[in-house]
Amino acid sequence: MKVHQRNLPRVVVIGGGFGGLEAAKALRKTNVRVTLLDRQNHHLFQPLLYQVATAALSPADIAEPLRHILRKQDNTEVIMGEAQRVDVDRKRVVTTDGEIDYDFLILATGARHSYFGHDKWEKFAPGLKSLDDALEIRRRMLLAFEIAEKTDDDDERRAAMTFVVVGGGPTGMEMAGAIAEIARVTLVKDFRHIDSSQARVLLLENAPRVIPQFASDLSESARRQLFDVGVEVRLRTLVEKINEEGVTLKGGEKIPARTVIWAAGNAASPLGATLGVPLDKQGRVIVKEDCSIPGYRDVFVIGDLAHFGGETPLPGLSPVAMQQGRHVARQIKILLAGGWTQRFDYFDKGTMATIGRNKAVVDAGFLHISGWLAWLAWLFVHILFLIGFRNRLLVFMNWAYAYFTYGRGARLITGRHSGTKGVES
Amino acid sequence: MKVHQRNLPRVVVIGGGFGGLEAAKALRKTNVRVTLLDRQNHHLFQPLLYQVATAALSPADIAEPLRHILRKQDNTEVIMGEAQRVDVDRKRVVTTDGEIDYDFLILATGARHSYFGHDKWEKFAPGLKSLDDALEIRRRMLLAFEIAEKTDDDDERRAAMTFVVVGGGPTGMEMAGAIAEIARVTLVKDFRHIDSSQARVLLLENAPRVIPQFASDLSESARRQLFDVGVEVRLRTLVEKINEEGVTLKGGEKIPARTVIWAAGNAASPLGATLGVPLDKQGRVIVKEDCSIPGYRDVFVIGDLAHFGGETPLPGLSPVAMQQGRHVARQIKILLAGGWTQRFDYFDKGTMATIGRNKAVVDAGFLHISGWLAWLAWLFVHILFLIGFRNRLLVFMNWAYAYFTYGRGARLITGRHSGTKGVES
Repeated sequence: MKVHQRNLPRVVVIGGGFGGLEAAKALRKTNVRVTLLDRQNHHLFQPLLYQVATAALSPADIAEPLRHILRKQDNTEVIMGEAQRVDVDRKRVVTTDGEIDYDFLILATGARHSYFGHDKWEKFAPGLKSLDDALEIRRRMLLAFEIAEKTDDDDERRAAMTFVVVGGGPTGMEMAGAIAEIARVTLVKDFRHIDSSQARVLLLENAPRVIPQFASDLSESARRQLFDVGVEVRLRTLVEKINEEGVTLKGGEKIPARTVIWAAGNAASPLGATLGVPLDKQGRVIVKEDCSIPGYRDVFVIGDLAHFGGETPLPGLSPVAMQQGRHVARQIKILLAGGWTQRFDYFDKGTMATIGRNKAVVDAGFLHISGWLAWLAWLFVHILFLIGFRNRLLVFMNWAYAYFTYGRGARLITGRHSGTKGVES
Repeated sequence: MKVHQRNLPRVVVIGGGFGGLEAAKALRKTNVRVTLLDRQNHHLFQPLLYQVATAALSPADIAEPLRHILRKQDNTEVIMGEAQRVDVDRKRVVTTDGEIDYDFLILATGARHSYFGHDKWEKFAPGLKSLDDALEIRRRMLLAFEIAEKTDDDDERRAAMTFVVVGGGPTGMEMAGAIAEIARVTLVKDFRHIDSSQARVLLLENAPRVIPQFASDLSESARRQLFDVGVEVRLRTLVEKINEEGVTLKGGEKIPARTVIWAAGNAASPLGATLGVPLDKQGRVIVKEDCSIPGYRDVFVIGDLAHFGGETPLPGLSPVAMQQGRHVARQIKILLAGGWTQRFDYFDKGTMATIGRNKAVVDAGFLHISGWLAWLAWLFVHILFLIGFRNRLLVFMNWAYAYFTYGRGARLITGRHSGTKGVES
């Protein structure tokens, strides 16, 4: 693999998500060569991914090629490829296309969904992490209505019109709220043989409340708002089995459902385990105060892959990843200047999640907001932080259109197997 | 399969392209039940499909769900499904989900690309008919640059940076022009190890001129405009073999190329052959003056699947299909009223094709235009006829953005096999 010609220290960043991209950008004016490696060619604005899955936005609205974002940053190259393991002693990354030597490494490969040992569930209940995941979920959701419309079999129709979201965190809640809105509003005039507003949308959560990472009054408000859009919330509910027929709950209750979406658990990227340092139960790398790993001052782990802090580590949120990205870029500059690294301090500006049109919750420490005002705040923040002027304008237009017409423009079924004959074929 | 309850004559339309959709819409106020059957859930604005393939537009910009287009047309149902054959004597269509009886049938299933008996070429040289085709071509084109950027092998890099478009009709010309523009302008700052403007784009055409369906002065102008954007046009050139290494021409010349796109030939949809009436060499159904088929007054064939006229039948263009769609809807009304059907007359408003930014040709009978003015006309017409207000606004915005920034917003590599390890994996 060719590298830049100049003889400068080389910083390799693995992962072009919020953390990795921020780290690479923060090294723009540093006298180093930066190599950003990612399996995908694009940075993804993950907080809006559920809107691609629910046909409100197109992939290009929320993603931007990494090369394009970094095109003017001359000290940086982007490589599309997959890292297989890190050799911290020989200071190199082994990829599917060869090896890359580094002087400093920033590992920011995030997390995938975890099925808690039930990997065979994935086929029936896809999770939502990438654009491909989102398009697959969109395809299944829209196909389910098509099948309900044309079947003569009451059981098949009922299963096709039942949508189960497993996991009541922000993503699960946003998915469930959006599907309910599609069924009750968007599609309501589209069919002749079914009444799409009769679709059942269930949100299953193991904990005693939804979005348990928020304050409990906001959880309660979210539950009420979910009820208002027509989502059946089931708390203290554990899934025992998922197969082509639907979901079986602990206790034996069966929910026949053609469309099941997994939003229940995350597992850290397996690359963390190749570092050879201690991991937590979820496979995250337990990092030191400066985000480096024990024994290796030149290796940093950030974002969802890092376990930062003691028994209650920082949550897997984009602001954490971005602040850590900037922090480790600063540490590299300090090390190059011969200084001592600093402790990472997270500045918490609050968190938010939406349920649907005019419905959201905002948790900004002492300030808790629900409903319409929270939704406006959510819209504003998500437009503001979206990558690229063009994307902001497009997303704003799509949302304005959807708001006034109750429509969703991207209701297209695509994918190699887009026939109606079955999902697995 | 359930049908509408009312006891009205049933018109079944197979295919939701330009012809079928226009026919269904024209029956809006007629006292019939209309069933529109399509394999896809959307109508596609095919003239802009190459812009999805070349990353200028997103699928949702040029497609709209058929249900949504027809949601207010109460006498019409949409079924997503695949017709397998037509039984003209028992008056029914056999689909993958059961049978549909008809009183009148409108067959409008169009054409696919044809490899002239070399079906194994398809794997190496995909054609451009559906959204999935377009996304696949986009993926291959963008991956080729990624591979060129990271390889150390000169031959591999050269093949990755060679793009061959087979077929010099309007679609082939538009594809070749767009790829050249991407390489020379859009991507030029994105890479560190390759100069994307050094990419070779070849357009191969068997005839002695490009876009042979246009007047010869416009063909010559198109050739010059292709030269200006950097496309190598090879006329009187026949392809003998296509495989993973590239293209072999008749005469033995080999062109190593990782990306080959097929725009050379069309074959009519196989559904036409199940009617049991005479077909032409390309498999098109030879229709009578009123677009019905010999011996069956209740079966009409329109659009790319129909051979209308003697030795020089009408071309496979959207205006032909749309006018035929409206015509056959009118014939059905006449037949229901006990009248005599009429001859179809095509009103030719001219044809146009674009090469790229500020470059196009317009053939409006006595009026031939080239260059900037033709391009403006092309833009205007394509915005005007695009389905839906939202799409028009989005496409206009995307084009305006692309025009002023020389960018293309949808340069995303998606698809299940989006790794860089190879196209076939």
